[in-house]
Amino acid sequence: MRAAFSDSAKVAAMLQAEAALARAQAECGITPEALAPAIDRITPEDLDLPGIGEGTALAGVPVIAFVKMARALLPGDLAAHFHKGATTQDILDTAQVLQMALGLAALRSDLATTVGGLERLAREHLRTPCIGRTYGQHAAPVTFGFKAAIWRRGILDVTERLPAVRARVLLASLGGPVGTLASLGQDGPRVAAGYARHLGLGAAPVTWHTRRAGVVEMGCWLAMLIGALAKFATDVAHLASTEVGEVAEPFTPGRGGSSAMPHKRNPVSATVILATHGAAPGHLAALVSAMAAAHERPAGAWHAEWHALPQLFGLASGALREAARLADGLLVDAGRMAENLAMTRGLIFADAAVACLSAHVGREAAEAAVARAAEAVRAGRIDLLHALKGDRALPESVRAELDGAFEIGPAVDAAALWAELGLRGDHGEPDAAPGA
Amino acid sequence: MRAAFSDSAKVAAMLQAEAALARAQAECGITPEALAPAIDRITPEDLDLPGIGEGTALAGVPVIAFVKMARALLPGDLAAHFHKGATTQDILDTAQVLQMALGLAALRSDLATTVGGLERLAREHLRTPCIGRTYGQHAAPVTFGFKAAIWRRGILDVTERLPAVRARVLLASLGGPVGTLASLGQDGPRVAAGYARHLGLGAAPVTWHTRRAGVVEMGCWLAMLIGALAKFATDVAHLASTEVGEVAEPFTPGRGGSSAMPHKRNPVSATVILATHGAAPGHLAALVSAMAAAHERPAGAWHAEWHALPQLFGLASGALREAARLADGLLVDAGRMAENLAMTRGLIFADAAVACLSAHVGREAAEAAVARAAEAVRAGRIDLLHALKGDRALPESVRAELDGAFEIGPAVDAAALWAELGLRGDHGEPDAAPGA
Amino acid sequence: MRAAFSDSAKVAAMLQAEAALARAQAECGITPEALAPAIDRITPEDLDLPGIGEGTALAGVPVIAFVKMARALLPGDLAAHFHKGATTQDILDTAQVLQMALGLAALRSDLATTVGGLERLAREHLRTPCIGRTYGQHAAPVTFGFKAAIWRRGILDVTERLPAVRARVLLASLGGPVGTLASLGQDGPRVAAGYARHLGLGAAPVTWHTRRAGVVEMGCWLAMLIGALAKFATDVAHLASTEVGEVAEPFTPGRGGSSAMPHKRNPVSATVILATHGAAPGHLAALVSAMAAAHERPAGAWHAEWHALPQLFGLASGALREAARLADGLLVDAGRMAENLAMTRGLIFADAAVACLSAHVGREAAEAAVARAAEAVRAGRIDLLHALKGDRALPESVRAELDGAFEIGPAVDAAALWAELGLRGDHGEPDAAPGA
Amino acid sequence: MRAAFSDSAKVAAMLQAEAALARAQAECGITPEALAPAIDRITPEDLDLPGIGEGTALAGVPVIAFVKMARALLPGDLAAHFHKGATTQDILDTAQVLQMALGLAALRSDLATTVGGLERLAREHLRTPCIGRTYGQHAAPVTFGFKAAIWRRGILDVTERLPAVRARVLLASLGGPVGTLASLGQDGPRVAAGYARHLGLGAAPVTWHTRRAGVVEMGCWLAMLIGALAKFATDVAHLASTEVGEVAEPFTPGRGGSSAMPHKRNPVSATVILATHGAAPGHLAALVSAMAAAHERPAGAWHAEWHALPQLFGLASGALREAARLADGLLVDAGRMAENLAMTRGLIFADAAVACLSAHVGREAAEAAVARAAEAVRAGRIDLLHALKGDRALPESVRAELDGAFEIGPAVDAAALWAELGLRGDHGEPDAAPGA
Repeated sequence: MRAAFSDSAKVAAMLQAEAALARAQAECGITPEALAPAIDRITPEDLDLPGIGEGTALAGVPVIAFVKMARALLPGDLAAHFHKGATTQDILDTAQVLQMALGLAALRSDLATTVGGLERLAREHLRTPCIGRTYGQHAAPVTFGFKAAIWRRGILDVTERLPAVRARVLLASLGGPVGTLASLGQDGPRVAAGYARHLGLGAAPVTWHTRRAGVVEMGCWLAMLIGALAKFATDVAHLASTEVGEVAEPFTPGRGGSSAMPHKRNPVSATVILATHGAAPGHLAALVSAMAAAHERPAGAWHAEWHALPQLFGLASGALREAARLADGLLVDAGRMAENLAMTRGLIFADAAVACLSAHVGREAAEAAVARAAEAVRAGRIDLLHALKGDRALPESVRAELDGAFEIGPAVDAAALWAELGLRGDHGEPDAAPGA
Repeated sequence: MRAAFSDSAKVAAMLQAEAALARAQAECGITPEALAPAIDRITPEDLDLPGIGEGTALAGVPVIAFVKMARALLPGDLAAHFHKGATTQDILDTAQVLQMALGLAALRSDLATTVGGLERLAREHLRTPCIGRTYGQHAAPVTFGFKAAIWRRGILDVTERLPAVRARVLLASLGGPVGTLASLGQDGPRVAAGYARHLGLGAAPVTWHTRRAGVVEMGCWLAMLIGALAKFATDVAHLASTEVGEVAEPFTPGRGGSSAMPHKRNPVSATVILATHGAAPGHLAALVSAMAAAHERPAGAWHAEWHALPQLFGLASGALREAARLADGLLVDAGRMAENLAMTRGLIFADAAVACLSAHVGREAAEAAVARAAEAVRAGRIDLLHALKGDRALPESVRAELDGAFEIGPAVDAAALWAELGLRGDHGEPDAAPGA
Repeated sequence: MRAAFSDSAKVAAMLQAEAALARAQAECGITPEALAPAIDRITPEDLDLPGIGEGTALAGVPVIAFVKMARALLPGDLAAHFHKGATTQDILDTAQVLQMALGLAALRSDLATTVGGLERLAREHLRTPCIGRTYGQHAAPVTFGFKAAIWRRGILDVTERLPAVRARVLLASLGGPVGTLASLGQDGPRVAAGYARHLGLGAAPVTWHTRRAGVVEMGCWLAMLIGALAKFATDVAHLASTEVGEVAEPFTPGRGGSSAMPHKRNPVSATVILATHGAAPGHLAALVSAMAAAHERPAGAWHAEWHALPQLFGLASGALREAARLADGLLVDAGRMAENLAMTRGLIFADAAVACLSAHVGREAAEAAVARAAEAVRAGRIDLLHALKGDRALPESVRAELDGAFEIGPAVDAAALWAELGLRGDHGEPDAAPGA
Repeated sequence: MRAAFSDSAKVAAMLQAEAALARAQAECGITPEALAPAIDRITPEDLDLPGIGEGTALAGVPVIAFVKMARALLPGDLAAHFHKGATTQDILDTAQVLQMALGLAALRSDLATTVGGLERLAREHLRTPCIGRTYGQHAAPVTFGFKAAIWRRGILDVTERLPAVRARVLLASLGGPVGTLASLGQDGPRVAAGYARHLGLGAAPVTWHTRRAGVVEMGCWLAMLIGALAKFATDVAHLASTEVGEVAEPFTPGRGGSSAMPHKRNPVSATVILATHGAAPGHLAALVSAMAAAHERPAGAWHAEWHALPQLFGLASGALREAARLADGLLVDAGRMAENLAMTRGLIFADAAVACLSAHVGREAAEAAVARAAEAVRAGRIDLLHALKGDRALPESVRAELDGAFEIGPAVDAAALWAELGLRGDHGEPDAAPGA
């Protein structure tokens, strides 16, 4: 990801944009055929990157210094045709879109590992019982495979949106000084279409210099990806906590240690993901603010994007690398899950017990009986089943039927059923999604 | 919009969800056929709304009090079947989705007025010359119709995304206590599908209790809409400023006045839109933060959505109402636009002058000549054309040709061409989009 | 808090500002003495609040309608003097400052309860051993009193900042149309000073119409308060979780229940606090954005504050009410704390064991021995002390000394020592702070 | 600023923290006297910075690798005493505080230039008439010196807060693994006090590992500084716009140019400042979110600060560098200001005209006359004074008095008066503030 958003990558993308422009203009007979191949031969290394940096500090944008340097590298008869009709924002926006495409491609492998790893976990533990928790409290049993299926689907929720995002967002930008490509006259639309085609990008119906929904949508996609990974990380960090102990991050010597506590094994990957999630929302907010772009080019709103968008790519990439590591190697302790299920001595079956009793004594009496019994469970060391069986207020025949309500089988069946539906309900190829 | 998110609307939506649940369960033979019609007969007025409010303060969620009150209104044999298998979040999330659908429908009319008004402005002023501004500086001519076409397309960028957003976001929620609908067993998926069908909503492959990308996407859509309106408002506020004076907000007696300055006509609509845009990004950020939803239901993350999402609907609605007013009645002063175009005494044609001269004396000499002339323009009161014509360093024949470079026709042609492309390039029915 | 920011409270504050203005002007002989008392006699009920609302929708600000209505209630000779020299923003900003003062006062009681409750908890449990957790992992022992002292001090960190915030932020606003009070001429500064004095507010050296650091500071103080409460709530929610069980929220029948799971006791107060914390940062961000206030009054930036600041007061108030409830009635289970301390079978004393062994066999050998033993603890059911005592590689004399390293006393002493320092180190009167 | 937050600066600060720890412990007889000087001799260059980077990727924090490398550079008998009793967060938080102090010092020079430049502008143009604008509309006259005084005071509003911020925020951190410095026993407080003293930092009454209000306050101060600069930049960008033309950014050849429009002089400094302001609020929001720091050290919340805080310093530094450039060299066009004042043909004196007429014909008749006249001004080319003088409905004697109402003198006097008050009302030494 660092490579996709390096200074060198930016300049390479700018050269690519200029070459496509030359190519499209040559097709209209506006520039010499030789210009595009000559631009192709320039590499970022041929340009003075620190000099472009200084030029940026001076002019506020890198393009002026860039154009000057690039022209100096071209034969005199071609130099004058370089960058013809284009404006700074055309080249920078297009370069950023090309970098976004690279950035999305750079996510592909870790995304496939993450989704694949979670699918494997979901299938392996489809029927491994595990407590479901709401508000941090034991609620009712699920399975660990169900949880993994939810994590995976939460990520797919986001990746499935990507093809549509790509189609709307990965557009070439070519509008000239005020968006009308006036110096190209009637050739404007044809040049703009060719430019986009040569770059493998979509073409906007009219300049998007100050229509920035696409940039927000890209940022929102990245923030949603980080958010989906943060859901996974939140659960892992809690499941790995000492009192819960149901999972552990894959162990590497030296990882998760503490400078003061040699026995510690901190959840490093989850921590990194949650830190990126803390930083992401603010960057998306900055992109939304930047939509109020004055007239044909704003003073500041556009430039704020240069800070926020690359950072979101960096955060997403960092979070995803850790998620892949987690999904690939998460250690699952089914024994501990079973122990934890027993922790409330049957209270997690209270609902089922009410249902069972209701059929015989009515809902109200059933609820009252279970409430009484639950009180006893909380107070002492008896479990709910035996508390109910010992309740003389209930008919003996009913009490005999109670065992069924305390069987975990139905909960496991339901969790496995939905986990499979979650695994099946894919609307896209996870590993093909981001870079396709 | 206020109606869509009132307490009464929420309770109505909750009743609608419960009725759909009853209907779906009746189809599976789980609840009596009579339950759904009985629920249909309950109205929000039948329930004690302040009592539900007190119940919410006590329990943290409104559903417990709601269920108790609704049961009390049902015949005893039906009451026990009410809310069967569902959990609080099922009813609240589904109700919120139904309110979102109402909220989107409530935007429809103002959206159509806005897009339609801007289209009319674009067509009327397709060839009305107007300066293009970048960084607040006069850059090169466009037309006012081009500007209106960009505003309109910026809004359509967002509305065109809505059908896809609707399809992904307007989903029924039914997962039961921990997302597995365990008490319904193998009937779960069938009940969930029927529930969604009766509500006219989509069905999620598996519970979205803690998969919240949809909520973020809805929020992002609203923020993008506000952002697109803010671009429009930013331009209007500036164009309406005293020094520019190219447009004025539609005048209503008493509007935009000042308590201290009776002569003032403040841009009220633009102000309101920009104020909503200041508030929107933070709400979207809150929704992204809320994606880190622990386990089967989090303590706080979900509840933060209750604050942010309705507010975003309210902000969008308020912004859109003012945008419609603006688009419908904006007063355009073409004479002032012409005066402003003349303000730099030809500097806005510097680019064209360079192009014209380059053909004869080479680019370098051309740029130098124009720079010299521009200096003279800035210093004194001469205009660029005459400064160049008076430049003895240029061959006389060339000077004679310069007039063409200072004609506005080509800029107007280009602007009109692209404006038409922008008007034509619709991928959806603007007025049908939001509520369809 | 709702009362402090109601429409009626706003109008009352506006009347208060106008009366102070009249009083200050009367002192300079600019308005009749009778004006101020006449304004004092007007109450919000005398004005048509819905009419002011309609006027706001029309004019963008409430002041024009307000001034008209108030004038109509005054004798003709006084009416013309009402609102003299002032502008809309003077009255609205001053009213908002008065409401902020009311809002701060409204926090006082819950703040005192919270800080007092936490102090009581800290003193009661000064030496109640409890595990310290880092990254969700058991780290080393502290005491519950130490934790409560940290919560309390985290809140005091914020409240101690309040007197300085009040002094800088609670300023009267009086600048007239463009901040120069020009219509009052040389009397301007004297009137402005008197106006502030009559309101019990500070006076700015020059208009703060477009200097908004104070509003941001107020918002940041509220966000920090919510943040400090969220630290408390985060810990409580986790300590109350089923696996940890060291605290419980105070129980009220019906509170924290679940519509589907009658046995649940959800942490409602912590949930509410965490939800407010999810919403708060975005509002603060909006206030920072609003600092870019153009010229003498901006179109939109100022108005965005009207959304964000009252919401932050509302969120803070809601969070604080729940924090007071928690601090006042938190149920502490010292037995469960002791059980949890034993959970890692001595690993939390690994550090102490290394220190003890180092003195005899060198740090490296000590660390190696403890690492071996820790592995055995994790693998089986032995505890760390016995694993080390059974390590034949260590000299027997050393092994005999190990017991001391596994005593909890020193950790409790240290925690109690620091808790007392934390309790002592007050730089302000907590209960007097907010409203004083 | 880059230097203050470089990897090398971080490691240097970490070494400084460790040396202070050694020194404080030596005073208590816990470590050898020789340790601190030995640490002093280690420089960041002696350590393998890329290796620390790899260690960070592995362990999640840099301290473990850092401690290992530093120990390897110390004599064996001292090595074991290095980092004694401290935990990772102690060293990182303290290092960050030291870097914050460096960062604040790095702002000093540009801050002094900015405040000084604005003071010079204010004094030079104390009586240079200039229109005051509200909602983008001409309102009433002020002076340019008044505007500069407001910009300066807006920045001082923030810098005056700095001494208090420094006192609360620049605290050493030393708490050991769980905040109780348990391994130091009763020596803990004395070591912590000495540690702070040797670093020239304040000492917290008890660990601030999870009390993060100080970090938020630092971030808020930076955001407010950026906000105050953004107010300045907003005004400059508008005043420099073609239609207004009252100021220009200081000109440097090549600055503010356009790749397509050689005649452009874009406001580069204002653009950079506004771009930083777009990015800042989100980082502050992230810091507020991070306050919910679980237990004795959170998994993620703390780490999110590492992203946000250095970025805020970088943004503030970049904005301030441009503000200094602007304040130092802003070009002011008093002639253009005079032209603009005349633009509304007297409407900006409408208020004064009403006041003048009221004394003779009553307020109602006066307002009606001015409204009629203003209509004529807007419609045609007459100015307000002559429109009123031509109004036969007004007594001739009154018309004769009107000239006074159209004199700019009183407005200039009032603006100059308040500007001087604004310049005088300093509560701190601007140039001494940030680094003192």
